[in-house]
Amino acid sequence: MRAVVPYTDRDPKSRLGGLLDADERRDFARAMLHDVLSAVAEAGLEPEVLSTAPVDVGGDVGSQVRVTVDDRPLTPAVNAALDPVGGTETAAAVVMADLALATPTAVRRLVETPGDVAVAPGRGGGTNALVVRHPDFAVDYHGCSYRDHRRVADDVGASVGVVDSMRLSTDVDEPEDLAEVLLHGEGRAAEWLREAGFELAVPGGRVSVERRV
Amino acid sequence: MRAVVPYTDRDPKSRLGGLLDADERRDFARAMLHDVLSAVAEAGLEPEVLSTAPVDVGGDVGSQVRVTVDDRPLTPAVNAALDPVGGTETAAAVVMADLALATPTAVRRLVETPGDVAVAPGRGGGTNALVVRHPDFAVDYHGCSYRDHRRVADDVGASVGVVDSMRLSTDVDEPEDLAEVLLHGEGRAAEWLREAGFELAVPGGRVSVERRV
Repeated sequence: MRAVVPYTDRDPKSRLGGLLDADERRDFARAMLHDVLSAVAEAGLEPEVLSTAPVDVGGDVGSQVRVTVDDRPLTPAVNAALDPVGGTETAAAVVMADLALATPTAVRRLVETPGDVAVAPGRGGGTNALVVRHPDFAVDYHGCSYRDHRRVADDVGASVGVVDSMRLSTDVDEPEDLAEVLLHGEGRAAEWLREAGFELAVPGGRVSVERRV
Repeated sequence: MRAVVPYTDRDPKSRLGGLLDADERRDFARAMLHDVLSAVAEAGLEPEVLSTAPVDVGGDVGSQVRVTVDDRPLTPAVNAALDPVGGTETAAAVVMADLALATPTAVRRLVETPGDVAVAPGRGGGTNALVVRHPDFAVDYHGCSYRDHRRVADDVGASVGVVDSMRLSTDVDEPEDLAEVLLHGEGRAAEWLREAGFELAVPGGRVSVERRV
């Protein structure tokens, strides 16, 4: 099964702007992309980057990955990538590029979740990963996409399965998410943060991150 | 297996003070306690409330639940409750009272996780649920308890298993956590919020909650 991983180098991870400059944010975003592609490949899927511009993934996984360039916004680009489902393909996965805690086990749990559509919800109503097995299902990432995707599935008569995974629910957008990467990350993204001087801090008993450089 | 659920009526959920008054916070905390006890009981465990003062749980589950009063802080009270492990008991669980998304399935996955200690990490480095099967393991809920509990386990030679569950990782402390309850909750806590006028809002594409009363 193909696993489409949407990615953009256009000002990635802008909400981390208070902690990381633009070059660092791009490097960190690429480290997360690498970790997601590795987890997807080790889970037995065929990773494919859907990028707004050509991107060199690097690492061992880089040579296995096809890069499709589509400069449209996320929703139409992903729907075009899902077009073969129901035709030449029986299913395809869509996995966000900032799931820095993703592991092969977590990806396999998603793939093994029954339903015409299997969803890994993100914190705050997002849709962090999907397996689509129904030809009429289309994504819409605007707003509360978890709720919207359930409605879309209902509308086209597609059954929905939900995978209960902290790892897949954690997309990395905000400074507080970096603590999750330091605590639970096992790949390049966690390594990148440590090398950039980040470590866990527990001021007043609440966990956050500090940078020591 | 006993499942100890620590609870206090002393100013519960203080970080929701901007949205709920003191009586409402207590009612909401009790609704969450009810949901946790129900999930634990349906998973086949024996729920036991460890409370700083007598509490009437109510509902169908209330009649099944033993309440132990211990007015010490969380850590010593839980360690006292874990004392029988390795003596009269082979294992005991500790499940936080504010896991409003807990389901019987999620609790069963925790119990089926191998290891002398099975942990469900919470967001921000907390420890939301544990199964303890080692006589020398003791809890310490101060600070980054997930990391600390792994160290304690290492120190006493106890193996650690980690359950990857978004439901068990979601403890409800902050206003943004209420959106998770509205999105994924299946029990009294979600019902309580809806009856109190809360609904999802998606201002600027980011999910939050609004109160309409």
